[in-house]
Amino acid sequence: MASTAPRAWQVVLERIENDLRDGRLTPGDRLTPERELAAQLGVGRSSVREAIRVLEVLGVVRTATGSGPSAGAMIVTTPRGGLAAFLRLQVAANGFPLLDVVRTRIVLECDVAERLAQSDADLSGIHDILGAMDAADLTAEEFLALDARFHQALAEASGNAVISAMMAGLRSSIEGYTSAGAARLEAWPRVVDRLRREHRHIVDAVSRGEADEARETVRAHITDYYTEVAEALRSVDAAPGAAPIV
Amino acid sequence: MASTAPRAWQVVLERIENDLRDGRLTPGDRLTPERELAAQLGVGRSSVREAIRVLEVLGVVRTATGSGPSAGAMIVTTPRGGLAAFLRLQVAANGFPLLDVVRTRIVLECDVAERLAQSDADLSGIHDILGAMDAADLTAEEFLALDARFHQALAEASGNAVISAMMAGLRSSIEGYTSAGAARLEAWPRVVDRLRREHRHIVDAVSRGEADEARETVRAHITDYYTEVAEALRSVDAAPGAAPIV
Repeated sequence: MASTAPRAWQVVLERIENDLRDGRLTPGDRLTPERELAAQLGVGRSSVREAIRVLEVLGVVRTATGSGPSAGAMIVTTPRGGLAAFLRLQVAANGFPLLDVVRTRIVLECDVAERLAQSDADLSGIHDILGAMDAADLTAEEFLALDARFHQALAEASGNAVISAMMAGLRSSIEGYTSAGAARLEAWPRVVDRLRREHRHIVDAVSRGEADEARETVRAHITDYYTEVAEALRSVDAAPGAAPIV
Repeated sequence: MASTAPRAWQVVLERIENDLRDGRLTPGDRLTPERELAAQLGVGRSSVREAIRVLEVLGVVRTATGSGPSAGAMIVTTPRGGLAAFLRLQVAANGFPLLDVVRTRIVLECDVAERLAQSDADLSGIHDILGAMDAADLTAEEFLALDARFHQALAEASGNAVISAMMAGLRSSIEGYTSAGAARLEAWPRVVDRLRREHRHIVDAVSRGEADEARETVRAHITDYYTEVAEALRSVDAAPGAAPIV
């Protein structure tokens, strides 16, 4: 088997992680240039590059090629992008059953709705999305893109950065089944009408500060759509199609 | 700014992601060797290596150095490890406020407790951990390691792979504050006694199938400990120490 000693790229990753944790690196800072970091740590430049790619995909750094002030790697924090990449790859590799993804979405979004109902968050951006979803000539793809924005906007308005990031990750991992299902749902225009009504019901319950109603409306909204799509697809998950999801 | 065309390592990552999604690659498979993949995609070997590092940190592949049957990159799925790495780095980079991490933990663990109470999952492993936590001579570090195992074991017994992975990730990101807090809590032996009682109360409510009681006991357990530690640390988060967490 391979040695368990940390490999060169891991040494680089740990150094950067420690610098982040101890505040020697913060968002907006540039990483020490590749060549210098390699020399400091006694590793090859390719190992530095490997560690930087990992950080880039995780959304911790952004890199730009070329020279000039925008070149090199800069610390950013876009947890959402990184988590989305992570969850997408995991679902692609069958790391997570789709049913578990949907159930987790319900857990997170019910909390989002409950908290929003208890807050006085500004919902005007959310009303704008609802308005856009009323357009009569939307394709299924356009409608679902707005639907994704609606759910994400609720999560962001509720103010928990971890839940927003997890939601964004889950959202991208279920996009495949939502669109596939939409394409096969024979009564799509009727489904769209129902989804519009349900979205307004959620926002309405939130605006009235009815936390329990907001939570239960979200639960039913996600459950009903998933069940309908799963039935249309028959075998969307390894579990029997009739498996209850809540 | 940099070009938006996908860079060589992204091309490699997308190819592998597509192969995973379409089932051409599944757990246990070996990746096409570096040299061959580089030739197929018309990119340099260093770009292939960068993409593989990303997959390795995300827990999608495992690589072994050297030659022989264990060399090369194999598809595995260890979502937990990948998510833990992701969340650890994000928290290190201040991507997530600690308070949001704790609140998310409450949302996920309350659901875990509720579902466990509604299931007939085998809790013998969890009772073993409770037994180990009763030892009189545990250091704070040993006690907290068992505490982490206890909470993780509950999540795993509840059977949702996504929630287990998220929990493992959050757990590693809060370990720092739990140990730091424990070291400063003057009444640590008394705190340990309370935590033991609370753990048994959670498992007891789960065993009796009392979902609401299990959920509320978990909520109080996490909230009380965090509040106590936050007070001991005074400024554990950017938010005022007295900010309510639920």
